[in-house]
Amino acid sequence: MKVIIVGGVAGGASCAARLRRVDEKAEILLVERGPYVSYANCGLPYHVGGSIEKESDLLVATADMFRHVFAIDCRTSCEVVGISADKKMVELKNHLTGEVTTEKYDKLVLSPGSAPIRPPLPGIELPGIFSVRTVADAVNMRKWLERDIDRSVGNSFTGIDTVSKPKNAVVIGGGFIGLEMVENLIERGLNVTLLEKLNQVMPPLDTEMARLVERYLAKHKVTVELSNGVAGFRKAATGGLEVLTEKGNAIPADIVVMAIGVKPELSLAKMAGIEVGARGGMRVDEQMRTSNPDIFAVGDAVEVKDFMTGEWTLIPLAGPANRQGRIVADVIAGRKARYRGTQGTSICKLFDATIAQTGISEKTLKRIGDTDYEKVYLYPNSHAGYYPGAKIMVIKFLFRKSNGKVLGAQVLGEDGVPKRIDSFAMAIQMGCTIYDLEESELCYAPPYGSAKDPVNFAGMVAADILRGDMPIVHWEALDGGFILDVRNPAELEVESIKGAVNIPLPQLRARLSELPKDKEINVLCRSAQRAYYATKILLQNGYKARNISGGMLARSHRAD
Amino acid sequence: MKVIIVGGVAGGASCAARLRRVDEKAEILLVERGPYVSYANCGLPYHVGGSIEKESDLLVATADMFRHVFAIDCRTSCEVVGISADKKMVELKNHLTGEVTTEKYDKLVLSPGSAPIRPPLPGIELPGIFSVRTVADAVNMRKWLERDIDRSVGNSFTGIDTVSKPKNAVVIGGGFIGLEMVENLIERGLNVTLLEKLNQVMPPLDTEMARLVERYLAKHKVTVELSNGVAGFRKAATGGLEVLTEKGNAIPADIVVMAIGVKPELSLAKMAGIEVGARGGMRVDEQMRTSNPDIFAVGDAVEVKDFMTGEWTLIPLAGPANRQGRIVADVIAGRKARYRGTQGTSICKLFDATIAQTGISEKTLKRIGDTDYEKVYLYPNSHAGYYPGAKIMVIKFLFRKSNGKVLGAQVLGEDGVPKRIDSFAMAIQMGCTIYDLEESELCYAPPYGSAKDPVNFAGMVAADILRGDMPIVHWEALDGGFILDVRNPAELEVESIKGAVNIPLPQLRARLSELPKDKEINVLCRSAQRAYYATKILLQNGYKARNISGGMLARSHRAD
Repeated sequence: MKVIIVGGVAGGASCAARLRRVDEKAEILLVERGPYVSYANCGLPYHVGGSIEKESDLLVATADMFRHVFAIDCRTSCEVVGISADKKMVELKNHLTGEVTTEKYDKLVLSPGSAPIRPPLPGIELPGIFSVRTVADAVNMRKWLERDIDRSVGNSFTGIDTVSKPKNAVVIGGGFIGLEMVENLIERGLNVTLLEKLNQVMPPLDTEMARLVERYLAKHKVTVELSNGVAGFRKAATGGLEVLTEKGNAIPADIVVMAIGVKPELSLAKMAGIEVGARGGMRVDEQMRTSNPDIFAVGDAVEVKDFMTGEWTLIPLAGPANRQGRIVADVIAGRKARYRGTQGTSICKLFDATIAQTGISEKTLKRIGDTDYEKVYLYPNSHAGYYPGAKIMVIKFLFRKSNGKVLGAQVLGEDGVPKRIDSFAMAIQMGCTIYDLEESELCYAPPYGSAKDPVNFAGMVAADILRGDMPIVHWEALDGGFILDVRNPAELEVESIKGAVNIPLPQLRARLSELPKDKEINVLCRSAQRAYYATKILLQNGYKARNISGGMLARSHRAD
Repeated sequence: MKVIIVGGVAGGASCAARLRRVDEKAEILLVERGPYVSYANCGLPYHVGGSIEKESDLLVATADMFRHVFAIDCRTSCEVVGISADKKMVELKNHLTGEVTTEKYDKLVLSPGSAPIRPPLPGIELPGIFSVRTVADAVNMRKWLERDIDRSVGNSFTGIDTVSKPKNAVVIGGGFIGLEMVENLIERGLNVTLLEKLNQVMPPLDTEMARLVERYLAKHKVTVELSNGVAGFRKAATGGLEVLTEKGNAIPADIVVMAIGVKPELSLAKMAGIEVGARGGMRVDEQMRTSNPDIFAVGDAVEVKDFMTGEWTLIPLAGPANRQGRIVADVIAGRKARYRGTQGTSICKLFDATIAQTGISEKTLKRIGDTDYEKVYLYPNSHAGYYPGAKIMVIKFLFRKSNGKVLGAQVLGEDGVPKRIDSFAMAIQMGCTIYDLEESELCYAPPYGSAKDPVNFAGMVAADILRGDMPIVHWEALDGGFILDVRNPAELEVESIKGAVNIPLPQLRARLSELPKDKEINVLCRSAQRAYYATKILLQNGYKARNISGGMLARSHRAD
């Protein structure tokens, strides 16, 4: 059995290592076009920022390790330049020697990854415009940031400030890599503008949750321009570059980072003549087999099933790539294995905050026309409020109206976010309902959580809604009706809703007669907790009432 | 409907608040013997240590809040001194006025909690011997620690050092509260001795995992005396106290903290004539109903089912107490609700480390005679090793041999522990198998995890064993057989096993002929990862081989 694996990062590397473990006798050839196998592409932004100081730290495993520990014929700087699927043969070019050779295979595994999108815009070829894909990209960006810029152009008269380090950066694209680059450039002391064509950053989030991220970016002095794409680049009169936008402004930039997304590398797929799906990735079955039964594909370049929506999707993430690589090795070795699909778990560090999500978002539900869902917004403390360091986290939680199944969660905060998102992720994988979450026995001690963990709390609030105990209304559905604000007068001075009637919660029972029995009363407070108590009181006293979900906090980051 | 709830902390308080929410019309009387309702008993050690600075921070909700927001008749400093279950009546004593009144109930909820065990040892009444239960305990301990001690007794000649703050502390009992007190006393600068009657600290952990905690305590200058109980106390000649131990030594102590456990408060149970179980807690059904159908009980004072073992158990933890309180409120209000039992999730901060567990331990499996299990020890990084701040965590993972069900996990480390324990907790609740864990899509970015999260990794290693791919042997079962150590010679210089043959992994394939074909080869490395590769190579080349689980790292904390 001879297996050729093309692409030595994430999916390809884990496939090779696993295959050796399950088949000591297989002949394995691992081919990588670049100089390194198994490098930490997720770490590249942090090498630019400096928190991963040494280039060598980015090299997770070396070609030598593959050779000596795994007995794998590992060739770097070696590119597949031809595939003959009929003859089960590939043509390899050694970039160091220029030599071209051919190799036969029994099974071929393609893990080409994806390439940063670089549209053919005017000026795109100018020096100083970077993408974030390889170790070389990160190293070159660092060098570029450490160089001196001659500012004397157009400034020759005064001669002041003629030489300086790069000051202004423009990051184009507000997804994971874009945000990580923003953070790392800010950490290096640059002025950063984030240009985003969509009307929100971080596309997996719903727009109103992204508003919180945009607010947080502004707090960190990042200039965020939404709904404004890049139109081109030009040299500035004063040295450096200018980024020209679709709205017509020109943003000065000593460095530009292109992070508008990635697209599957399909050159190998074309050579092999295998099927490509509508999303632009190689089409594979549950065993990661392409349309050619002897060719497998894994990682960023394949389409996988989102098991929440049933749709084909692209997920350029390392976790799934690794699992897929493992699965292909097992399948080739004649074992039972299948990729269960993705559920869209992802996470991103942004300064002191964490942004994470799992499962399905509301905008995806809307896109696929699924209306069998409800949502809640929660603002719990990350741990017991009386223990120092507790931070409020924001949770948007989605669940099935008809049966209570957990659908998705988006969590933002400065403490405890990864823990909650992984609990939600595990819950979704196992088909949990909100009633299960109510009863989950999660760890509690004051430094780590609360006796009712935010995950329990999400289940409890959701269950109150589905059990019919707590009618709610969302801000976007509030149609100018009667609003009862149960906060304290001091809170209303900071921000209040025009026309709302104020009765502080502790006075509510005594002042019920002030309220109309014939109107729907929309009850408001800061986070919807006191409004919850108030709604309970009203309902049980014969009023029509509903809680304004998320209260003033949810209003503060409305998308519209 | 009139409901009397006795005990205003955790279970009682959440029952009262929930009951009001589900029944606006119920007459609710909440009775608390102490001066505060709903105080943060989990925070008491941190008030002693000072990280929770103000006493008022410990008060989560006030009696006034219960009165005004929840319209609950909330009486503090009020004790139940008699229960007439026939007449459905309680006798209440107001400790401020001395007045005794009676109240009728339709339903009675008992949430008396548990009391610290204080055996009648010689000298137990001496000042300076504290328990950790109430706010007053914490406040008194702080005062005691802040006072000046006259050291002139027995030291009158020199007159040097006659007055000083308390220096020496003895904590008796190494469970959660004991360890939290140790940390907080060390933070205050005291010399701390921890006296533990058992042969390990932190009883929910298996002994070999507790060894790591004991080592960590020693690193923080805590003197740990295991297998040594307290025999009594006496005044020391030089002032202060001495703790007399069962082994016969005397340990000087300016303060003593008794933390040898808690026992259910049963005085109410006795007054009401309700059934008490073999573990010494009130016996309740799934609706938390006692043997008297109009009396419910929740919290530390009830026995609940451990759904992993099917046994009755006591769990003096706030999370379950809160959920039970909620359930009783629902049941009283005529709703469907049931307590699903406990799975033993718990967590404890200890300096920079976290100790946590969920599910069943090996010693419990042994105690109940359950042999259908296997275990692995894992030493993964808390997040990608190339991103700064990664820490090795130690995981003991238990699973069913027959079907792969996840049974339990014990996790120790300085980073990322709560996240993993909650993933395991959710997995156990939902009946996950190790094959599910292999495929879990948990969040990954370099600051938070790895493409293969430790939770995935646990599943993968376990699945390799159950699929028959990786025979393992545990240190305690290793019977002097042939050991192959595949580490590098430099590592062997630090520590090695006598008689083991060393062939570094990269040389193994070339030197196979040096190994015996007729003997079982026990393969060893640092963490069992390289030994895993080596075992694979050996097995596929016709050798009999097995991986020594956990490698040298597991050996370093063997219990025996």
